[in-house]
Amino acid sequence: MKINMSHGSGGKASAELMRNIFGKYFGNEVLDKMEDAAVLDLPGKIAYSTDSFVVTPVVFKGGDIGKLSVCGTVNDLLMLGAEPKYLTAGFILEEGLELDQLETIVASMAETAKKAGVVIVAGDTKVVEGRGGLFINTSGIGLIPEGRDVSAANCEQGDVILLSGTLGDHHACILSARMEIENNIASDCACLNDIPNTLFQHGIHVKTMRDVTRGGLATVLNEIADTSQCGVELREDDIPVHPEVMGFCDILGLDPLTMGNEGKMIVIVPEEDAEKALTLMKETAVGRDAVIIGKATAGKGVVMKTRIGGSRVVDVLYGEGLPRIC
Amino acid sequence: MKINMSHGSGGKASAELMRNIFGKYFGNEVLDKMEDAAVLDLPGKIAYSTDSFVVTPVVFKGGDIGKLSVCGTVNDLLMLGAEPKYLTAGFILEEGLELDQLETIVASMAETAKKAGVVIVAGDTKVVEGRGGLFINTSGIGLIPEGRDVSAANCEQGDVILLSGTLGDHHACILSARMEIENNIASDCACLNDIPNTLFQHGIHVKTMRDVTRGGLATVLNEIADTSQCGVELREDDIPVHPEVMGFCDILGLDPLTMGNEGKMIVIVPEEDAEKALTLMKETAVGRDAVIIGKATAGKGVVMKTRIGGSRVVDVLYGEGLPRIC
Repeated sequence: MKINMSHGSGGKASAELMRNIFGKYFGNEVLDKMEDAAVLDLPGKIAYSTDSFVVTPVVFKGGDIGKLSVCGTVNDLLMLGAEPKYLTAGFILEEGLELDQLETIVASMAETAKKAGVVIVAGDTKVVEGRGGLFINTSGIGLIPEGRDVSAANCEQGDVILLSGTLGDHHACILSARMEIENNIASDCACLNDIPNTLFQHGIHVKTMRDVTRGGLATVLNEIADTSQCGVELREDDIPVHPEVMGFCDILGLDPLTMGNEGKMIVIVPEEDAEKALTLMKETAVGRDAVIIGKATAGKGVVMKTRIGGSRVVDVLYGEGLPRIC
Repeated sequence: MKINMSHGSGGKASAELMRNIFGKYFGNEVLDKMEDAAVLDLPGKIAYSTDSFVVTPVVFKGGDIGKLSVCGTVNDLLMLGAEPKYLTAGFILEEGLELDQLETIVASMAETAKKAGVVIVAGDTKVVEGRGGLFINTSGIGLIPEGRDVSAANCEQGDVILLSGTLGDHHACILSARMEIENNIASDCACLNDIPNTLFQHGIHVKTMRDVTRGGLATVLNEIADTSQCGVELREDDIPVHPEVMGFCDILGLDPLTMGNEGKMIVIVPEEDAEKALTLMKETAVGRDAVIIGKATAGKGVVMKTRIGGSRVVDVLYGEGLPRIC
C-alpha cells in the first residue's frame, strides 16, 4: 500500500496512519494523549535544537533517514553538554511512498531513540506530491546538568583537539549509492552519547564539542576558530581516513576534510586532560578510532601541516559538496 | 537570485544565506551564538510541539507559509494553556526558489513571531531538487503556569462549547487560489494568544481548547468526544460561516464542518462560565465573531441539530479534503 493525499488530510486516513505506523513504534505515555503538544516537567537549563533530513537514498549501508534523523538531533544536543531527553518528529511524505518502507524507517527511529535514551513526544505528518520519498524534521530538548559550560567560544591557545574517528564515511557511502558504485563503505551514522558521558563522568574539562557533519572538519574547525578567536593547527598524518574511503576520494578528487560525517565529533580539552580524554574515548564503540589531530594556536584560521612538510590553509567548504547527504 | 544546491551544503554559501536572510530577520542573543542547539533557562512544566508546513501557493490572501508556520505552532502550545516562548525553524528549500520570495517569507515569520511573543532560537536549512517551492517545520516550547489543566480529556456532560469565529476561510482561500477563482476570501491565519490570555486573566475555568485546523470542526469535536468519553451536540444555526465562503462551498459541494482553518479555536467551559467567556472572546480581534455552538452530552459522538429540525451524525473527515492547505 502506498501513501496518498488522504494520509495528510487530518481526517480518518491520517488517524489510521498515526495509529498503525507511528503509534505502533513511538507509543509512549506523552504521545498517546493525542494533544496538540506534549506536556513535560523540566527543571533548569535546557538545550533545544532542530534539524531536517532529506538524504537520498532513504536507506543506505549503515543506516537510513530515520536513524539519521534521531542521531543528528541527539548529537546536536550532546555537543552542548546536554543530556538528550525528548524529540519531536515532523514527517513530510511524498505521494507514492510505500507504507512498508515508511514502517521500516519509523521502526528504525524508534530503535535509535531507545538506544539514545530519548522519547519522541510529539509529531506531525503532511503529504505532498512527489516521487515516493520522504523528509523528516526532528527537534530535541536536552537537560544541561549544573556546572557544564561547553561552547564553540571556549577554545584557547594550547588546547588540544581530539577527533573521534575516521572522516568521510557517511559522505562516501551516500555518494557510492547515488553513483551505483559497489563497495563496502558504510555510513558512520551513530548517536554519540557514550563519548560525552564518559568524559564528564571522569571529570575531563570539556571546553568545546562539535559533531563533524555537513561541511566537514574544515568547516567545523573554521567556525570554532572564528567564534573562539584563535587559530587551529592540524597534522595531516594524524587525520584518520578508512583506506577504502581514501581510495574512493582519490579516484573522485574528494577531500575528506570537507566531507560530511554522521557519527564523528571533535572534543577540545586543556592540554593536561588530552591523554586521559583520548584513552576514555577509545574505550567507547563510537570513539574507538579516536586520535589527537592538533591544537589551538594564537593565530587565525585553520592551518594543516602536510605529509611532505609544508603547510596549507584549510578553508571552509565552498560550493555544493554533495547535496542531500543528510 | 535563486536558491541552488550550494545553499544547502553547510559550507560558505550556506553561511551567507544564514547571515543575509535568516540572521537579518531572526537575529537574537540565542541564535547569534551559532551553536548546534539553543541553551535556555526554563523552570517547571512546559508544552512542546511540532508542525510542518507545505501549503501551496506559499503566499496567499491573508498570509503566507512563514506566518502560518509560526501561528500553527504557537496555537498548538496555547491550546494546552501554555505561554509560547521559543520556536525552532527548519527550512527545506527547493532549488530555484527566488531569494526575494524567501526573504519575504522569513520577514513575515519574524514579524508574526514578534507579535506572538516568541523567539526563534534554533534553525536548519536543507536544499532539495524541485520546482522553486519550500517547506517549513517549526517546533515550539511554551511554559504552562502553575494550576492550569487544559486537556482534550477534560470535557464533561453539560459543558458549553464556544467557537472563536467563522469556519472555512483558510481552506476556501487556498482552494480559490489553486483553482484561480477570483474572490475576496482571505485566510483567517492568525496567532490566537489573545483568547486564552483574556480567559485566564479573568479566571474562566478553561477545560479544553483546540485550534480548528486540518480535518475541521467535525474532526476536532469527534477527537474530544472520544478522548473525554462524552457526546457533543451542535446547533447548525449557530455555526458561523462568512456569506462568501458559504456561497463558495455551496457551488463546490464543500462542508465547512470539515474544512481547515488557521486562526479559529474552540473553548470548552463549565455552563456557569459560558456567557462571561463569550463576552471576553468577543472583545478580542481574533474572537470578535465568537459564538456558543453547542454542549457536551452524556451520549457518544457528535450530533448536529439541523436547520430543518432534524439531527445528523457529524463524522470525522474521511478521504483527502484539500491537500497542502497548511
